[in-house]
Amino acid sequence: MQSVPLQQFLDDLASAAPTPGGGGAAAIMGAMGAALVSMVANLTIGKKGYEGVEAEMKAQLAVSEALRARLTAMVADDVAAFNQLMGAYRLPKDTDDQKTLRSAAIQEGLKQATRVPLACVKLCVEAIQVAQRSAEHGNLNVISDTGAGVLALQAAMRSAALNVYINTPSIKDPFFVASVSQELEALLAGNLPLTEAVYAKVRSRMG
Amino acid sequence: MQSVPLQQFLDDLASAAPTPGGGGAAAIMGAMGAALVSMVANLTIGKKGYEGVEAEMKAQLAVSEALRARLTAMVADDVAAFNQLMGAYRLPKDTDDQKTLRSAAIQEGLKQATRVPLACVKLCVEAIQVAQRSAEHGNLNVISDTGAGVLALQAAMRSAALNVYINTPSIKDPFFVASVSQELEALLAGNLPLTEAVYAKVRSRMG
Repeated sequence: MQSVPLQQFLDDLASAAPTPGGGGAAAIMGAMGAALVSMVANLTIGKKGYEGVEAEMKAQLAVSEALRARLTAMVADDVAAFNQLMGAYRLPKDTDDQKTLRSAAIQEGLKQATRVPLACVKLCVEAIQVAQRSAEHGNLNVISDTGAGVLALQAAMRSAALNVYINTPSIKDPFFVASVSQELEALLAGNLPLTEAVYAKVRSRMG
Repeated sequence: MQSVPLQQFLDDLASAAPTPGGGGAAAIMGAMGAALVSMVANLTIGKKGYEGVEAEMKAQLAVSEALRARLTAMVADDVAAFNQLMGAYRLPKDTDDQKTLRSAAIQEGLKQATRVPLACVKLCVEAIQVAQRSAEHGNLNVISDTGAGVLALQAAMRSAALNVYINTPSIKDPFFVASVSQELEALLAGNLPLTEAVYAKVRSRMG
């Protein structure tokens, strides 16, 4: 997926093909957000007036680059989860045994299609926390890039959450659903306001 | 730009190179949002139960695809505006005449670096209005993709706005600044709440 030209990725996203869709778009928006946080670190390290935050920026850069790699790779995880679920729906359902097996495979497919976007939300949360420090200490000349980064991460986190919401109503394991829902809502409650606080910090530092 | 592999685009975004930056990321997020709206139209047209909205979806698809093309092309406009401004800063400033010329070129460069993101905001607003109808009438099976689309457009619109905000304080033409600021704030005031209304509509249709 990462080797396709940008134009082709956008064409595939727009097409009637089911993947890439919102889940893959969430992962790429997250990767773009992490990339912008990395850019700001790269443009702060070695710059006059920012000697005091150089060590911090180098540490941040290592984290944001690792998160970017994981978010980019998640596009493939999203496709794999979708294909697993579609494969389960296509299983034979002629006998009772087949019906039982198919139903179990669909349920496992739905769980996997929920775990992947939940993992995406978690990576976005980690990147948002790096963006927070970037907004406080990063190079003022590129502070708007930190702002664009945190907005991309916010959209990625909320889009990934939608991909959890669309699958959980079909999952019959109430413990799995409760666990995923509680974890997701706690992550959103803790970090959606943080994205707005980082955005407000960016605006205040723009003068 | 559109022919670069997706991975290369992300690497370039993360690098110390000043472009692509937040402005280019805004344009690509907008293009991703328009692409997701197109995807939902493509997966609604011809589907059983959606015969009544088929003509509307075909019309929407034409609009979202045209917006996607314009948003994708805007990455190059953002790079061109940045290069124009940097070129102006590099002009000679040894004589008074040179200083006057350089200052005028910088002011024109700053204006262009403001016009491009304002145009990006306007394209996002058009796409958000298409997403609104998609959320109301699009295929319920892919309603989360409409949601991801409107969140991408919201992030794109706000990121482009940041690229206006970072340039206007340096522009000395008060009429230009007032005109741009009034237009931008009116667009945001009218359409940021709309993005949240579309998101809420998506959530309500997910059941």
